[in-house]
Amino acid sequence: FCPPGVLPLCRQPPAWGRAARQPPGPPQPPGLPLAPCRAFSNSKILVELDESSGVATMKFKSPPVNSLSLDFLTEFCISLEKLENDRACRGVIFTSAVPKIFSSGLDITEMCGKSKEHYAEFWRAVQEMWLRLYGSNMVTVAAVNGSSPAGGCLIALSCDYRIMVENPKFSIGLNEAQLGIVAPFWFKDTFVNVVGHRVAERSLQLGSLHPAPEAHRFGLVDEVVPEEKLQEKAAAVMAQWLAIPDHARQLTKSMMRKAALDRLIAHREEDIQNFISFISKESIQKSLRMYMEMLKKKKS
Amino acid sequence: FCPPGVLPLCRQPPAWGRAARQPPGPPQPPGLPLAPCRAFSNSKILVELDESSGVATMKFKSPPVNSLSLDFLTEFCISLEKLENDRACRGVIFTSAVPKIFSSGLDITEMCGKSKEHYAEFWRAVQEMWLRLYGSNMVTVAAVNGSSPAGGCLIALSCDYRIMVENPKFSIGLNEAQLGIVAPFWFKDTFVNVVGHRVAERSLQLGSLHPAPEAHRFGLVDEVVPEEKLQEKAAAVMAQWLAIPDHARQLTKSMMRKAALDRLIAHREEDIQNFISFISKESIQKSLRMYMEMLKKKKS
Amino acid sequence: FCPPGVLPLCRQPPAWGRAARQPPGPPQPPGLPLAPCRAFSNSKILVELDESSGVATMKFKSPPVNSLSLDFLTEFCISLEKLENDRACRGVIFTSAVPKIFSSGLDITEMCGKSKEHYAEFWRAVQEMWLRLYGSNMVTVAAVNGSSPAGGCLIALSCDYRIMVENPKFSIGLNEAQLGIVAPFWFKDTFVNVVGHRVAERSLQLGSLHPAPEAHRFGLVDEVVPEEKLQEKAAAVMAQWLAIPDHARQLTKSMMRKAALDRLIAHREEDIQNFISFISKESIQKSLRMYMEMLKKKKS
Repeated sequence: FCPPGVLPLCRQPPAWGRAARQPPGPPQPPGLPLAPCRAFSNSKILVELDESSGVATMKFKSPPVNSLSLDFLTEFCISLEKLENDRACRGVIFTSAVPKIFSSGLDITEMCGKSKEHYAEFWRAVQEMWLRLYGSNMVTVAAVNGSSPAGGCLIALSCDYRIMVENPKFSIGLNEAQLGIVAPFWFKDTFVNVVGHRVAERSLQLGSLHPAPEAHRFGLVDEVVPEEKLQEKAAAVMAQWLAIPDHARQLTKSMMRKAALDRLIAHREEDIQNFISFISKESIQKSLRMYMEMLKKKKS
Repeated sequence: FCPPGVLPLCRQPPAWGRAARQPPGPPQPPGLPLAPCRAFSNSKILVELDESSGVATMKFKSPPVNSLSLDFLTEFCISLEKLENDRACRGVIFTSAVPKIFSSGLDITEMCGKSKEHYAEFWRAVQEMWLRLYGSNMVTVAAVNGSSPAGGCLIALSCDYRIMVENPKFSIGLNEAQLGIVAPFWFKDTFVNVVGHRVAERSLQLGSLHPAPEAHRFGLVDEVVPEEKLQEKAAAVMAQWLAIPDHARQLTKSMMRKAALDRLIAHREEDIQNFISFISKESIQKSLRMYMEMLKKKKS
Repeated sequence: FCPPGVLPLCRQPPAWGRAARQPPGPPQPPGLPLAPCRAFSNSKILVELDESSGVATMKFKSPPVNSLSLDFLTEFCISLEKLENDRACRGVIFTSAVPKIFSSGLDITEMCGKSKEHYAEFWRAVQEMWLRLYGSNMVTVAAVNGSSPAGGCLIALSCDYRIMVENPKFSIGLNEAQLGIVAPFWFKDTFVNVVGHRVAERSLQLGSLHPAPEAHRFGLVDEVVPEEKLQEKAAAVMAQWLAIPDHARQLTKSMMRKAALDRLIAHREEDIQNFISFISKESIQKSLRMYMEMLKKKKS
């Protein structure tokens, strides 16, 4: 159910999928074995598609913390669109190739000391990521193998199912308030749809980062497992979801998520203007600069 | 709070209730004892009204699986309307007279190889059942004494309270997706109102049938009891709800359910057209025929 | 986020806060120590503001049961507005100075045998209390040290966090249905936002009063503690919430609560007319009179 108003993103020809978008041709001649696994990679994300199961794995590989820069978001959307258009692909598992971190969320350098045009382009890319992921026709499973604050948490929340490594040192949550900023309404809508109004209200106001076991207790993640079981568990959950006829599952998913998707689509430009005027405030710029200074000192 | 737009269904004169619909007359002369229990029955449903408690029991007796055929739905609505209009009746307990099954849901034979006019009539009857049950002024308790998939689950969800036999062989859920079809939006609204958005999203997409103890764990049913305690428990719950002044309870119920009822009423014809065009698709007809074949083989 | 449509209430000059509303002046000369605690009191409510922490405590002192009379509501709103406008105040703890009761809810004598003008004025004051409390920019914590039915429960529900004394003799709930009346839609909206649709539907229809431990189990209160730990716990929770930058927390709170607040603001006059016509019914007046008789007998 590709939501109307989502911009076409394919600015570069897809690495595969051209054949997939065409009507199904005659069966492959027996002498021509299909590659069991195809992979493509760009600078931030590695994608592997297992054609026998129809399941792709999207691995975030943008050290040190998989932050959601404009480049990362663009690659994410292009990769997702390729898979969406590839008939060989029915489900995607999202995970990280960087130890201890799933994704640290939006890249603060994109929000600091840049032009209004840049802020607009960046925010549109953040919206695009969510519209495509929350509205994906594929089964989407987050295999959260590290901490996942803010935008990282949003990626997990937008999937159909969330499995997290049970390590209590890994935490997850929409902690924007802690940084003095506010999660946009569609982050909030996605959160409420997962954990309910009360838990969302408290967690968002406190900007809470929940250790994995706590996140599991109130349903922010569906399951916690030991790290060595994560990929196996994700594959098992994926198989369970893929056992349902695609068409019925997709229409049901659309029915559940359409209201939230439509709300952003209807207020997309307004949301961009809101972001620009908020982020352009000197007080916000100052606190983001201080936060970046702090991160730099921490690193060195 | 009889919702506007609900069609009058009383195509046949009610077996009782004529007096009830009239303004209250003088008190009964003392020499004329009231019948303590009145019963009426049609081919699919048996109704017994205990006048001392004001509680009716509606027993589904349409073997083999109490499927919701057009006949069943019509009798259901007529029986419910009779009780609704009978001042002696303040609450209804729904249960099954068929062992191991509460109701198997919509009758597939009504959706297979029939005319568009038939599909329209059938779907209008399904809507009517829900509008009358979800919007009933009476206290409604589901005493679920067997499995209850799809439309059977909807009946339970539409009651004020659900008690289920704790046998894990009995399951309940909106499993439409498993059959390649999609639960209509008002099934979904009813489900979300009971279990919340997240549980509904997952359960509907997977078309899950939940064993009674699991259904109880996440609130799809309010209570599980041993089979021999079911009727006793249902009566006790009913007494608790009837202790509240009718007027206040009814207005409160209306306040909670009006939004969902109004949504179907506003889109009723559209929902019928959607159903017809969906069910008329050759691919859907084919999978329903295959499903019926499978059921037939299973039986023999 | 002072909601539009909320009437200015400051009919009397505030006892403090005049300075606070002015732009921040130069720092205090070191020789002039700030008062560490300021207090003001009127006939129904005692307010103490600890300037070092920025936390005020509002103590209800209207024996025998802190019922919400027109006078109480007016004082409540004025006190809250003073604190809202006082830069030294960032959070408020609500508690009772009357043993065993937090607040018994709306004062029935205001709803019985009075003029329509009086009913209108009273109901507007009830609305005003909720609009100001649910929409407060300050952190609001309910320290529920006694029973809290109906309007008392609404006060607790409208806070950011609820802590209750774990004594099972203290109960809390929206029990209007028990008295033959109906909670208004915005009581219901507030309740649903805290406990979800299903729990609210059942509890409101039954007019349930939940003992503290039960209320905690399904999230009507966030925490239960021994009576002697209540104030300490409330202060600790407050400190946790005040650690978040005010601006981000306030915008987040507004985002979560705006829909419910806007709904009453849009239907405020209609809601007043509904209340007047409902409460003016002879049947309702009669049952309220009977209830008051019963309370009087109980007392003597």
